[in-house]
Amino acid sequence: MNFQKEYESRLSIINGRLSEILQADNKSKFSDEIVEVMKYSLLSGGKRIRPIILIESCRINSVYDEIALDFACALEMIHTYSLIHDDLPAMDNDDYRRGKLSSHKKFGEDMAILGGDALLNGAFEVMLVETKGKSMNFKNYISAMKKIACSSGYRGMILGQVSDIKSFEISNSSDLDYINKNKTGAIIEAAFSLGPIISGHKENYKKFQKLGQLFGNAFQIQDDVLDVIGDFEKLGKPVGSDSKNKKSTYADIFGIEKAKNKYIMMYNECMGTLKSIRNTEFLVEMINNMSNREK
Amino acid sequence: MNFQKEYESRLSIINGRLSEILQADNKSKFSDEIVEVMKYSLLSGGKRIRPIILIESCRINSVYDEIALDFACALEMIHTYSLIHDDLPAMDNDDYRRGKLSSHKKFGEDMAILGGDALLNGAFEVMLVETKGKSMNFKNYISAMKKIACSSGYRGMILGQVSDIKSFEISNSSDLDYINKNKTGAIIEAAFSLGPIISGHKENYKKFQKLGQLFGNAFQIQDDVLDVIGDFEKLGKPVGSDSKNKKSTYADIFGIEKAKNKYIMMYNECMGTLKSIRNTEFLVEMINNMSNREK
Repeated sequence: MNFQKEYESRLSIINGRLSEILQADNKSKFSDEIVEVMKYSLLSGGKRIRPIILIESCRINSVYDEIALDFACALEMIHTYSLIHDDLPAMDNDDYRRGKLSSHKKFGEDMAILGGDALLNGAFEVMLVETKGKSMNFKNYISAMKKIACSSGYRGMILGQVSDIKSFEISNSSDLDYINKNKTGAIIEAAFSLGPIISGHKENYKKFQKLGQLFGNAFQIQDDVLDVIGDFEKLGKPVGSDSKNKKSTYADIFGIEKAKNKYIMMYNECMGTLKSIRNTEFLVEMINNMSNREK
Repeated sequence: MNFQKEYESRLSIINGRLSEILQADNKSKFSDEIVEVMKYSLLSGGKRIRPIILIESCRINSVYDEIALDFACALEMIHTYSLIHDDLPAMDNDDYRRGKLSSHKKFGEDMAILGGDALLNGAFEVMLVETKGKSMNFKNYISAMKKIACSSGYRGMILGQVSDIKSFEISNSSDLDYINKNKTGAIIEAAFSLGPIISGHKENYKKFQKLGQLFGNAFQIQDDVLDVIGDFEKLGKPVGSDSKNKKSTYADIFGIEKAKNKYIMMYNECMGTLKSIRNTEFLVEMINNMSNREK
């Protein structure tokens, strides 16, 4: 398997579908405007880790790619909305994202708020298709949407953001684990879990859920480390933006080296588990690459 | 029928379910905090017009109340999130809502943004229930959720908000119709349409959809008029907040009297249509009361 070529091909399928999904209604310039705000952030060249994991989890669990694709796009829309709102002046106040002006710098705060809202709402519009029930079990279809909804909501990602905002005095790793489990982890766990949920392969659910938790945690610790040691050009956002906002990170609590060991250990555990499952070469390679990323 | 007593009873069922729905996870104070933000606005004593209409539309179309209730609550959650985000400094910058401090004045902008996000997301969590398929047709169930999703999204309510924000130069009623059709109308149309959608009574769909469009338009014109002539105590928000933000309203374009005639005519048309349908006494009475409201 040529991993890079495979990755590019999946990326291009996801990006193609993402740009197809959002259509202006051609009835007013306002419709063009909101679609432009949504697309600006959605199509700004992210790594698409979440949708790629979701599609891989589905493939490994024998779910057709075309069924997985819209769930994957929905998850990316939710991720993107969370970044837009996270960048707002009242939140992290970041002017740059993925090397471009953040949404509110480009379109104004009002449009950034609405664009984020529209992407979150749009994620459900994309998943809700009357004919979907034909190609998969109804209960599993509802469970899949519910898993995504719960992972992004007030008992998942949003809870993580709240605890992150309020975390000025946190100085131990278990509090930080709680934040990350929700803020980054919940959505990534959903991405890993969706294959077993849609296919109804209950015997795989716990294993994939655990993989998601491990990967999500590793990913966030790595992000914290990169935030300290990365440079602007590679990350596409200002270095040290977390400490600028006085947030505690794993890098603060453990120091760079220990934090680095922690996430590498976790990635290795993921790869170990994956090797015990058939058909996981792509994911193993992806995680291997992730663990060495510089941005 | 004692209308007032009936209305109170329905209100209490909706409010009861709304306060039941949002539960903190008891694992962290952050969970309590976000639930508090959500409940502050959700349980602040609105008129619950949208959920009451939705439940009535279901009853008239022979859908059980318990099936209708969660859709009704979801719609109210979406409506509430839109008010929270609408009140933000970057949007309408309103300090009061329903006679209380608006969410961002009470909890800060960051929590108001997240609280709004959480309510929008939560609406889908409430609707997505694996066992729902048992009590209603699967395709109709998905259609109902999709109708709600589309009515609140970038081709519905959010589009209306975008056009409202960008409407400084609007001076004719057809532009204003476009704004209102989306901003207020789409969600109200969904409330009216849900009975025929869930029950599969296709022959009623167009009629209820038309009712929703008429009622939504009347309701918005009336709101504009009340915004000019109401007083703070009755409305629970500053009078003239629309013209403060330099937005054109029906009251500006037509003048108070003409605008008043317009919405009364529309309400009358709704009542006329409803009288041709069985079992609509409650809705007729409700609209009759609405047309005379002072807040």
